[in-house]
Amino acid sequence: MAKRILPENLIKFCVEIFVKAGLSTDDACTVADVLVMTDTWGTFSHGTVAILNYVQAIKSGSIDPAGKPRLAGEGPSWAVIDANAGMGMPACCMAMNLAIEKARKQTFAWAGVRNSSHFGAAGYYANMAVKHDMIGIAMSNADPNMVVPGARGHVIGNNPIAYAVPAGKEQPIFLDIALSAVAAGKIFAAKALGHEIPATWITDADGLPTSDPTNWPATGSMTPMAGHKGYGIALLIEVLAGALTGAGILSEVKSWKLHPGEKAYLGQSFLVINPAAILPLDDFKQHIDSAIQELHNAPKAKGSDRIYVPGELEWERREDALRNGIPLPELSFTALYQAGEELGVDTRLLD
Amino acid sequence: MAKRILPENLIKFCVEIFVKAGLSTDDACTVADVLVMTDTWGTFSHGTVAILNYVQAIKSGSIDPAGKPRLAGEGPSWAVIDANAGMGMPACCMAMNLAIEKARKQTFAWAGVRNSSHFGAAGYYANMAVKHDMIGIAMSNADPNMVVPGARGHVIGNNPIAYAVPAGKEQPIFLDIALSAVAAGKIFAAKALGHEIPATWITDADGLPTSDPTNWPATGSMTPMAGHKGYGIALLIEVLAGALTGAGILSEVKSWKLHPGEKAYLGQSFLVINPAAILPLDDFKQHIDSAIQELHNAPKAKGSDRIYVPGELEWERREDALRNGIPLPELSFTALYQAGEELGVDTRLLD
Repeated sequence: MAKRILPENLIKFCVEIFVKAGLSTDDACTVADVLVMTDTWGTFSHGTVAILNYVQAIKSGSIDPAGKPRLAGEGPSWAVIDANAGMGMPACCMAMNLAIEKARKQTFAWAGVRNSSHFGAAGYYANMAVKHDMIGIAMSNADPNMVVPGARGHVIGNNPIAYAVPAGKEQPIFLDIALSAVAAGKIFAAKALGHEIPATWITDADGLPTSDPTNWPATGSMTPMAGHKGYGIALLIEVLAGALTGAGILSEVKSWKLHPGEKAYLGQSFLVINPAAILPLDDFKQHIDSAIQELHNAPKAKGSDRIYVPGELEWERREDALRNGIPLPELSFTALYQAGEELGVDTRLLD
Repeated sequence: MAKRILPENLIKFCVEIFVKAGLSTDDACTVADVLVMTDTWGTFSHGTVAILNYVQAIKSGSIDPAGKPRLAGEGPSWAVIDANAGMGMPACCMAMNLAIEKARKQTFAWAGVRNSSHFGAAGYYANMAVKHDMIGIAMSNADPNMVVPGARGHVIGNNPIAYAVPAGKEQPIFLDIALSAVAAGKIFAAKALGHEIPATWITDADGLPTSDPTNWPATGSMTPMAGHKGYGIALLIEVLAGALTGAGILSEVKSWKLHPGEKAYLGQSFLVINPAAILPLDDFKQHIDSAIQELHNAPKAKGSDRIYVPGELEWERREDALRNGIPLPELSFTALYQAGEELGVDTRLLD
């Protein structure tokens, strides 16, 4: 059985790490909340396992731990935040809160972030809107890590997108995906074990399909989900999170691993919709509930006893994590202990 | 060499057909423009080939040819149109025009359509915004024709989404996709020829993958692109085009083929963004141009001599069609001649 850790202890530990790394206590609390919420969903790839990446990006100068987000422009239904190369989470929470506030009056509101860094899991921000009975859509571009049809190498990011929709009696609908055919973590795992992978996951140095992950990601690149469709949606996110905010796009976005010391110039994009301004909120929520129930009650495939609505698994895992602790994988614990040692933070909270 | 027809002749013919079918001349012109524009892009599956489907839906009572779209609600940055079960195109053009007008003042604006019918190709509406230097995003739900993970049969529509982004010297970026792994037309074509298909396109009566299209679509169903990711995005479109507009969602949406005579209760959703309100328009357009050029200039895969940006192929085909006529496939001509005969419209315009 996996070792479990209480969310409040994990948050405390992460706050201490980020304060030691140079963040204000407020910013450290925001970052810790994003990462630990993500772990409670079981989305471990985007939770505290990345703590060392953030710390190293701060050390290398890619992220300015004291960089404070600043309102760079706004109108009644939009805002652009300059993250000043600080951590992505405080700037993105500020953006999402602004968009929620504006959507209350304007029904549709948008906030973008430029000069930003990695924001953790997109789903965190989408769900901020749901607490206010609004629909949230969150997007970010990413440093190029994906090929496009006809090309070889890293051309575009596997730009993440998440959305969350308030329901009535049911849990919110909630999806958080990246646009590569599979998550990089799966390819790293196969590579570490010396396994072959399906020939649809990556291309080789020539840009051709390969089942051999040995040389990835040095040469070759991840493929977009659904080919030209995933490529096209990734490009839309470059436009909305990059071009529209004045952030970097495509190769202007730098990787904290490949370009240590360089600012990321990432961009994020948050759209908030207030359904209560358009139709009675209860009607809307009941319609969402009935859609969820229709999906649950659809005829099952042979061998299947359940149909999941997006987010359902995450809410179940979160309920379990809040009650029994988060079953963090060993990889996460290893990163956390190492971060504690590097920054001189007492690791007993992790035991 | 394919027989070609001049766009203006095809428009004239389609207008006559739809007027005979009971539409006002204005509405007939709108419908013809949508279908013929789509044919000029080479997206023949959503162009005039469907003319008989529309005519039959009018005859069966699914579509009211005299149904006039009506503004059902609005705010400074949003509007909802009731299509009154008329043709989808006039209602959707009205919605998109309203959203463009509102985005000019509000930067972000949205218009939805409920009680609607098939709207043709989503890309038509997205591109309406580009003419005003704005970004357009168009979505529609569809009658259930796709399975979801764990289920069997038709559970959700392969809901289309399109976007278009203005560029500077380059052509607008423009993507129009449906969320099934492949277009239904490809499966019908394989079925007609008695060919096997890849086992990733559809499921069988048990909800399991099959390479035999014989019993589809009576039993079995199309699979979502990228599995749970395509399912999740399709559900987002149900929310934005269905629930938010007060249209039908999931099984509330009726098929003109499976439920002749029943109203479709489709919903559409249009988002317009005015970049000029956020940053200097020339800066934005130059950034889009440089992204397009970076994509064009990316290293090519072995055997590839060109990388396409979404929409590039469509604009090239359109330029050729405007100059030399549209190389309509035989299937489209057959449908057009048949519509002419059924409705007593002179088919010499097609010769």
